[in-house]
Amino acid sequence: MLPATITAMHPLDSKKTTAHDAANGLFKNALRDATEIRCHTHKIADASILDAGIDTNGSLAAGLILARLCMGDLAEIQITACDNDTYASSNAVFVRTDDPLVACLGCQYAGWPIQTNDFFAMGSGPMRMARGREETLVMLNLTQAASSVVGVLESDKLPTRSAVETIAEQCGVSTSNLHLAIAPSTSIAGSVQVVARSIETAIHKLHELKFDVTQIVSATGHAPLPPPAKPGDTTTGIGRTNDAMLYGATVTLWIDADDGAIDGVASKVPSESSPDHGRPFADVFKEYDYDFYKVDPMLFSPAVVVIHNLRSGKTWRTGRLKTDVLIQSFT
Amino acid sequence: MLPATITAMHPLDSKKTTAHDAANGLFKNALRDATEIRCHTHKIADASILDAGIDTNGSLAAGLILARLCMGDLAEIQITACDNDTYASSNAVFVRTDDPLVACLGCQYAGWPIQTNDFFAMGSGPMRMARGREETLVMLNLTQAASSVVGVLESDKLPTRSAVETIAEQCGVSTSNLHLAIAPSTSIAGSVQVVARSIETAIHKLHELKFDVTQIVSATGHAPLPPPAKPGDTTTGIGRTNDAMLYGATVTLWIDADDGAIDGVASKVPSESSPDHGRPFADVFKEYDYDFYKVDPMLFSPAVVVIHNLRSGKTWRTGRLKTDVLIQSFT
Amino acid sequence: MLPATITAMHPLDSKKTTAHDAANGLFKNALRDATEIRCHTHKIADASILDAGIDTNGSLAAGLILARLCMGDLAEIQITACDNDTYASSNAVFVRTDDPLVACLGCQYAGWPIQTNDFFAMGSGPMRMARGREETLVMLNLTQAASSVVGVLESDKLPTRSAVETIAEQCGVSTSNLHLAIAPSTSIAGSVQVVARSIETAIHKLHELKFDVTQIVSATGHAPLPPPAKPGDTTTGIGRTNDAMLYGATVTLWIDADDGAIDGVASKVPSESSPDHGRPFADVFKEYDYDFYKVDPMLFSPAVVVIHNLRSGKTWRTGRLKTDVLIQSFT
Repeated sequence: MLPATITAMHPLDSKKTTAHDAANGLFKNALRDATEIRCHTHKIADASILDAGIDTNGSLAAGLILARLCMGDLAEIQITACDNDTYASSNAVFVRTDDPLVACLGCQYAGWPIQTNDFFAMGSGPMRMARGREETLVMLNLTQAASSVVGVLESDKLPTRSAVETIAEQCGVSTSNLHLAIAPSTSIAGSVQVVARSIETAIHKLHELKFDVTQIVSATGHAPLPPPAKPGDTTTGIGRTNDAMLYGATVTLWIDADDGAIDGVASKVPSESSPDHGRPFADVFKEYDYDFYKVDPMLFSPAVVVIHNLRSGKTWRTGRLKTDVLIQSFT
Repeated sequence: MLPATITAMHPLDSKKTTAHDAANGLFKNALRDATEIRCHTHKIADASILDAGIDTNGSLAAGLILARLCMGDLAEIQITACDNDTYASSNAVFVRTDDPLVACLGCQYAGWPIQTNDFFAMGSGPMRMARGREETLVMLNLTQAASSVVGVLESDKLPTRSAVETIAEQCGVSTSNLHLAIAPSTSIAGSVQVVARSIETAIHKLHELKFDVTQIVSATGHAPLPPPAKPGDTTTGIGRTNDAMLYGATVTLWIDADDGAIDGVASKVPSESSPDHGRPFADVFKEYDYDFYKVDPMLFSPAVVVIHNLRSGKTWRTGRLKTDVLIQSFT
Repeated sequence: MLPATITAMHPLDSKKTTAHDAANGLFKNALRDATEIRCHTHKIADASILDAGIDTNGSLAAGLILARLCMGDLAEIQITACDNDTYASSNAVFVRTDDPLVACLGCQYAGWPIQTNDFFAMGSGPMRMARGREETLVMLNLTQAASSVVGVLESDKLPTRSAVETIAEQCGVSTSNLHLAIAPSTSIAGSVQVVARSIETAIHKLHELKFDVTQIVSATGHAPLPPPAKPGDTTTGIGRTNDAMLYGATVTLWIDADDGAIDGVASKVPSESSPDHGRPFADVFKEYDYDFYKVDPMLFSPAVVVIHNLRSGKTWRTGRLKTDVLIQSFT
């Protein structure tokens, strides 16, 4: 029984705290089991670093752990078999969450470009809520301080001392309470981790389309696991993992909203709504001089999006899988 | 070491007790984690109530818990991806059990119409074994008293005080030892819970066909997860979840029996053996004035049934998936 | 902190020890839960025996436990749904490991023909590392003494006292520290256990082809679960489980090697590279007078093999599924 003067925590605040706590606990176990999952550990400026793919081949298990860390452990994530004729791969990543808002936008979205004079990486994970500076996080009440935080970096270099100090400072924690997992998109773990972002790309796109994403109740996502690219070939690494989303991902969203609000966005959510759709992402990226900010933001979304509206019982299914582009990209 | 005067428990009795105990433990955890899985909790006439879909949107996780409660936790149940071209859905529920008799007929079958002057629901779960009044349970030695029981109700209303008291009394427990989980067929959790009944429909049909179901050793079942219907539209809710069974479920049974006994029933087990087969269940239901008892009982069974006879090494595969009806039903 | 005089264990030695320990722990739990998973337990010459399919029908759960015991619990193993039109079965076994060398060659490969004057079985599991006599184990540094060991036998008879004593002696353990799980290929558990060998067949074939298998980093495998054959009909039992591999298995390997080394073997890894490919294994077996040693060793491999080379980002996909032979074999 709570003392009368303490009010129960709001469910959203509770989830954000859960995400921080769960990721911290999971990271601690991953450090302990680092050798088992073929990861290396480092201390950089007193922060704990888990290398899952830079100086090690990493593992599928490490990829699943990185994916869970990214989502504040608020999702079930599995590697499964899939049909090569459809997906140009025999393996897929299936994700399921009942907390898509906190798991995907609060935690998983790689919305923090970490830039110091000697390091760059896109940052994701619950640490973004502790930093709390991204406009989306503020708008959606997804900021949440924590005394200890977890972040995931997509990079082929370990963070520098100054990068670690910058991250810790912006998150309001001491470096000794900063936990960073890192893998390049060209590694086994990196490919798993990125491909686990199917739901996130759908929800982020819906947010860009001004849909009220707090109405999204539950979600599943399924996308093929691409072959890791050659180490150092980041363009191919980013290309293949993005293609797995754009041309191979199917996301189902259970939403509680007015039909009209869904009608207004449903056809725009899948990647085919973008004029850049239809060819491998690496080609698009090259055309825009490898500058993410020049790529049409409407491109970043799943191939197929299914929306079940709990309020009306109606279903929208938009987009399509494009096996031909997956074959081109993965081989 | 057991004292010499105590004989070891018969395996069937042991399983029935396990089902009660496991469901009680799982329910207790679900109550504790209710907020996490987006459920509400109530005390009605001292009984513990878990609302997974009436005054809450519930969750996929809650649906899995309800499904496990229904089966006395004697099965592995998973949400997986599936092929939309075949199933008119991108998600499916896969069930596996080595205790099909106790899990499906002893517990999961919704064989108890709970009727008071102010409440009605179909009741399932291990509490039915404690009540022990259904003919099937008595015939198959599937009755089992317990000091504390779990039941699952498919309803869009919370049970009344008189309903709770009636249930407790018939189960031979005090209301404080009665645990009820509840969700409408139109909810997320309700749709998961019903679609997890694929094996049960096959086994119940076999029992109706006078096949000795104690010969069924192990089983798997797979059925598409339909979109939840509009709240209050119970006909569509029941229609879609039944169609997932009748036109989308594949059940595999490992049986230890004489070939002749299987030959006599194999072609009758799948739903296509019923004259009511071939159109959405909601249409059939309407035609029979929404009276379940007028519907051909032979209709309630999976689309495809595979029987492996351990005794002979022979396999029977009967029935077929009907994508066209699934499309009609789910959209 | 380790004392200064103790050097850390080499990762490979650590994995081998983990495999022994994990299998011992898992076996102990299986003995405790034997009734739950429909197994019988015996003491033969003081050794602990788990019968999962001789005098019992066993279970799917027991099959998964046997498969995990075979692999020193260094893999994730699941029963899933699969497409009957492709696999002539509605169920499949999916395996994933980041330790393919120790799990598959060190433990799972059935490389020990256990022969006494009154017993014969093929032996697999971590006990083979403790025996350490197979040429492959010695060559690949996969020998590892242990004070307590687990083995899995494919047989339709319980081991005799002399067989147990021979096994214990060759493993360097007392019979009381020998743990043997056993099931015929014609049983439920036996069929699951054999079909979980998809990755192993690929890696063993690569080793036969003189490829340096220590370069294999991670792997997944997927194969249909065949119907158990009639008890005593070992030819059909072996036939169906082998056909599930030869004509139904897809294995993906993440390898860190030179492209040239893979180029030299890729087309030879799948079963179609053997002249004996193309008809049910039982027919081949019969033609060679039921003598395994006369069958082309190049036949024992998955239908489809996918190799992702981490070093170059290149992918090789060779072989093909043969549904027609699966249908012939499974029905």
